[in-house]
Amino acid sequence: MDKAHLGHHISQQFNAELEDIRNRVLAMGGLVEQQIADAVSALVQGDIELCETVITNDYRVNAMEVALDEECAHTLARRQPAASDLRLIVAVVKTITDLERIGDQAEKVARMGLHLTAMERPKNHYLEIQSLGVHARDMLHGALDAFARMDVEAAVQVAQRDVTVDHEYEGVMRQMITFMMEDPRSIARSLDIMWAARALERIGDHARNIGEYVIYLVKGKDVRHISLEQMEKEARDSGGV
Amino acid sequence: MDKAHLGHHISQQFNAELEDIRNRVLAMGGLVEQQIADAVSALVQGDIELCETVITNDYRVNAMEVALDEECAHTLARRQPAASDLRLIVAVVKTITDLERIGDQAEKVARMGLHLTAMERPKNHYLEIQSLGVHARDMLHGALDAFARMDVEAAVQVAQRDVTVDHEYEGVMRQMITFMMEDPRSIARSLDIMWAARALERIGDHARNIGEYVIYLVKGKDVRHISLEQMEKEARDSGGV
Repeated sequence: MDKAHLGHHISQQFNAELEDIRNRVLAMGGLVEQQIADAVSALVQGDIELCETVITNDYRVNAMEVALDEECAHTLARRQPAASDLRLIVAVVKTITDLERIGDQAEKVARMGLHLTAMERPKNHYLEIQSLGVHARDMLHGALDAFARMDVEAAVQVAQRDVTVDHEYEGVMRQMITFMMEDPRSIARSLDIMWAARALERIGDHARNIGEYVIYLVKGKDVRHISLEQMEKEARDSGGV
Repeated sequence: MDKAHLGHHISQQFNAELEDIRNRVLAMGGLVEQQIADAVSALVQGDIELCETVITNDYRVNAMEVALDEECAHTLARRQPAASDLRLIVAVVKTITDLERIGDQAEKVARMGLHLTAMERPKNHYLEIQSLGVHARDMLHGALDAFARMDVEAAVQVAQRDVTVDHEYEGVMRQMITFMMEDPRSIARSLDIMWAARALERIGDHARNIGEYVIYLVKGKDVRHISLEQMEKEARDSGGV
């Protein structure tokens, strides 16, 4: 299914509705991407005002989810779509749930950022959070791109990148435990960094979920709960529905 | 909408399908409840075999989610349900996503249980995990009950209980930080307890989500992202759709 597919309905109105839903998902995704970028940069720079802006803006993400959910329910009821249109709506309902939860995780990073402003800054300027933040944001960007272009290959790449992020996250956890043991005065700070790292790792998981919905949408195959190798195979398999 | 409502279709086959979906959601919920109970008991008793059973059984939860998701998509496509039937299917699709994630959290508790068997047992026999475990399981039970009986009042009670669980969880976090600072040798153990507590607190959040879908189902109102007081008001409001 490609973008051109969206033009296939006799009802111009229905086409416009589907296009509108797609665009609103991408707009919500863009806002969430910005929230991640702002949260990470606020934490790294110790910018209290930016932390607070991210926390306040989470209601905008939530409002977009509720409104989109409603639009999907209305479209389902009014248009009773079948086949690939139906899959699109189901995938959108799932995608926006993940986007909303990514928003919650960005908010959590900002809250940790607020805590950390009260503590001594680490010598490495939160290098681990900066790095995980770039990965998390790129993964979300990749997933949204895959959704916008119905690109299965791009969706698989998001899942591949998740493996890297998980390894990096495990490394950060081990490092923080070492810091805490070496210097118990660093416990509070290390814990806040751990929670922020954990939130960024979770964002990677949600981005991966979104990529999986794209594969479901294009291939009609549910690729959750299977190994990465299996997913790559399923995604490349030319058979579809 | 009450259970009797399920019998209103002229098509006996459609009635049977909706009833089957409902029953399978409850069966999946029952399995997930058991996973929570087993994970907590395995951690508390240091039962390696039971920890491993919980971890292995998570695939059963995942398989039930995938199968139910497919059945919902088929029903949407074949029956093109409207109004309350449509809301039921949408609520089911969301509910099973939360059930699957509760399953993941139970698995995480079991993994922490495995780690902890290698460490000295705390004097309080993991009292905080036992207590959070009871809350988490009761909340899920309440949410499934609310779903089974389409009981808005029971759904509100789940949300009310979530507030208690969040407070208790915060207390556990503070206590663990104190332990770590007092005795750096306890850091690894305290962290594992923190992650297990965090997983149980997350289960409470997911149970609350399921309660919110029940309110959406019965009242046709989206009660996410609003205060508990507002939710209580909306739920008690006699107006519906």
